Amino acid sequence: MEQNAAVLAPRGIDLGQPVIDVDIHVNVPSEQALVPYLSDHWREYLRYSAFKLPTDTAYPKGAPTSALPGTAPENGVPGSSLALVREHVLDAWNVEVGILNCSYAADSLHNPDTAAAMSAAVNDWLIGEWLDKEPRLRASIVVPSRVPELAAKEIDRLGGHPGVVQVFLPAVSEAPYGHRRYWPIFEAAARHDLVVSLQFGGAPGNPPTGAGWPSYYVEEYVGMAQVYQSQLLNLVVEGVFDHFPTLRMAMIEGGWTWLPSLMWRIDKDWKGLRREVPWNTRTPSEYIRERMRFSLQPLDGAPDPKHMLMLIDQIGSDEVLMFSTDYPHWHFDRPEEAVPAGLPDVLRRKILSENARSFYRLS
Amino acid sequence: MEQNAAVLAPRGIDLGQPVIDVDIHVNVPSEQALVPYLSDHWREYLRYSAFKLPTDTAYPKGAPTSALPGTAPENGVPGSSLALVREHVLDAWNVEVGILNCSYAADSLHNPDTAAAMSAAVNDWLIGEWLDKEPRLRASIVVPSRVPELAAKEIDRLGGHPGVVQVFLPAVSEAPYGHRRYWPIFEAAARHDLVVSLQFGGAPGNPPTGAGWPSYYVEEYVGMAQVYQSQLLNLVVEGVFDHFPTLRMAMIEGGWTWLPSLMWRIDKDWKGLRREVPWNTRTPSEYIRERMRFSLQPLDGAPDPKHMLMLIDQIGSDEVLMFSTDYPHWHFDRPEEAVPAGLPDVLRRKILSENARSFYRLS
Repeated sequence: MEQNAAVLAPRGIDLGQPVIDVDIHVNVPSEQALVPYLSDHWREYLRYSAFKLPTDTAYPKGAPTSALPGTAPENGVPGSSLALVREHVLDAWNVEVGILNCSYAADSLHNPDTAAAMSAAVNDWLIGEWLDKEPRLRASIVVPSRVPELAAKEIDRLGGHPGVVQVFLPAVSEAPYGHRRYWPIFEAAARHDLVVSLQFGGAPGNPPTGAGWPSYYVEEYVGMAQVYQSQLLNLVVEGVFDHFPTLRMAMIEGGWTWLPSLMWRIDKDWKGLRREVPWNTRTPSEYIRERMRFSLQPLDGAPDPKHMLMLIDQIGSDEVLMFSTDYPHWHFDRPEEAVPAGLPDVLRRKILSENARSFYRLS
Repeated sequence: MEQNAAVLAPRGIDLGQPVIDVDIHVNVPSEQALVPYLSDHWREYLRYSAFKLPTDTAYPKGAPTSALPGTAPENGVPGSSLALVREHVLDAWNVEVGILNCSYAADSLHNPDTAAAMSAAVNDWLIGEWLDKEPRLRASIVVPSRVPELAAKEIDRLGGHPGVVQVFLPAVSEAPYGHRRYWPIFEAAARHDLVVSLQFGGAPGNPPTGAGWPSYYVEEYVGMAQVYQSQLLNLVVEGVFDHFPTLRMAMIEGGWTWLPSLMWRIDKDWKGLRREVPWNTRTPSEYIRERMRFSLQPLDGAPDPKHMLMLIDQIGSDEVLMFSTDYPHWHFDRPEEAVPAGLPDVLRRKILSENARSFYRLS
């Protein structure tokens, strides 16, 4: 991603087959958009309180990484127009199924009832304005993740909707998601056979690094990969996958080229320290390969294509990567930055569509 | 590292040449050991206060990872006996120069004067009991890192000692070390041409992950690699290496197999976001390759030796790795876990001795 490079996107790249895009971002354009989906109480609350929409965002408006030029509709925000998503993503990339992720920062709302009501409104907006109008789309639902019991209620409310395939959790959280306080979320997701996803961002109030608060956005952006690594490790060793044997989790927009070295490290140290986590009956990397999937973008890849293939080989499974455009975020200009070059045919097809089809139970 | 594997260490492995070991841990055996190195005031303080030694440790006594069997002297703690360090490390591994790292948790002491006094006593103990008695040894000095001005004073006090080659900073800190509040430490180190090192552990009181407090030691242990990654990123983008053009930093016991993927990610995102850090005149990976070095252990490596060689190739420099035993910690049993197999001769020699010789200016 170069600020001054010739911009390929929002044009698509012909990948020679229909794809499943597991990461299309949509944004609520304004509080007005949610009004039709709120009860009288919450409409009045919006009208009379200072609260409009959460202001926390992991994608500052002016940062070059936040949006490709040309993705904002007139007077709107990038990812808020179905017409543009159809043009820039669904049609341009030959998308068979696209999964919508709406980074509405419900976790930044400290009033639990507001967080629950606004999450529900966002989800009903996603269904009413997107899923009902475009059969190629599916969605992740936003939940009030600070209050797991309310999050579970929202999952129960919408878990049966055929367009809902996933629960959206922000990667940065107040405590690691493996902690038992969060288990009601996993229990509800498992009840409806939904994937639980970790997604870029989060605004819990605690520092997003293991060494306190960074100073610059570039650190928050790059450092998000470390947050995913901490969460992944915690989810495995706390026994979430042992306790919920059908649970599946997707790591969306957190990168994946760090995965081999992390698995080596976890497996090695787990061998020495597993006595304290006796519920883990297999090596951590086995849980990861079986139960977790990773979106392809951002592809923080090696300049040398042979290193990319080696990395995928090191993961030890051809099933963990799932194609994503991460629209409208700006991750790539050149085709080989969108999808690694030189993939064997079977692996390429799995990454472009089959891994996601199977993981999300898409028919 | 397998709990029940046949134990090779504390025997050494014949590597066919003298080595420079950049990570030998020593431990203060008891508060009594420091008494000769304290002023009357602090002796009295030790006698009359509840304070003995910091209890925070990144290496719990009973954890299998903390120490190889057989490394504790009778009635003592591992790494507290010069005779055993000679036998298990210096002689067994044919060590030409060994660098001592004493994980005394000065950063856990909130009284700044106590932290400074105890750091000074530990350093004088290192000189008196180790450096003065064994010419093959060098040492990192402990500093009261919470109070950078006092840390700088301690660096000035001992920076001219020929056995002192490095400043010891715990990896987990209250704020990332690139923050300007810490710059007096780098300034003092640069003044004496000392390396500044980040070392496993740290007890600042804030959570050691970007998603709050983990539950288990295995997470703290594995997750330490993420802390190093956050620190490294912060040190580069805050401009520490631009501001201190001769500063060199060593990442000790934080792993390094995560380095290629991190450098790809930082370089890529920096290209889009570098406007906010205009002091960086080169790509972040260039600073890392030129100014940072990494200890070989823990070698969280690929099971396949060809992947190990590929990883080193991906780093893009044959100068960044430095051999370490990490004695008395238990990282390996088999020779190929101690040093990667199949290294080309020149690279192997650089890793085993020449990189450290040049970086630490060892004559």
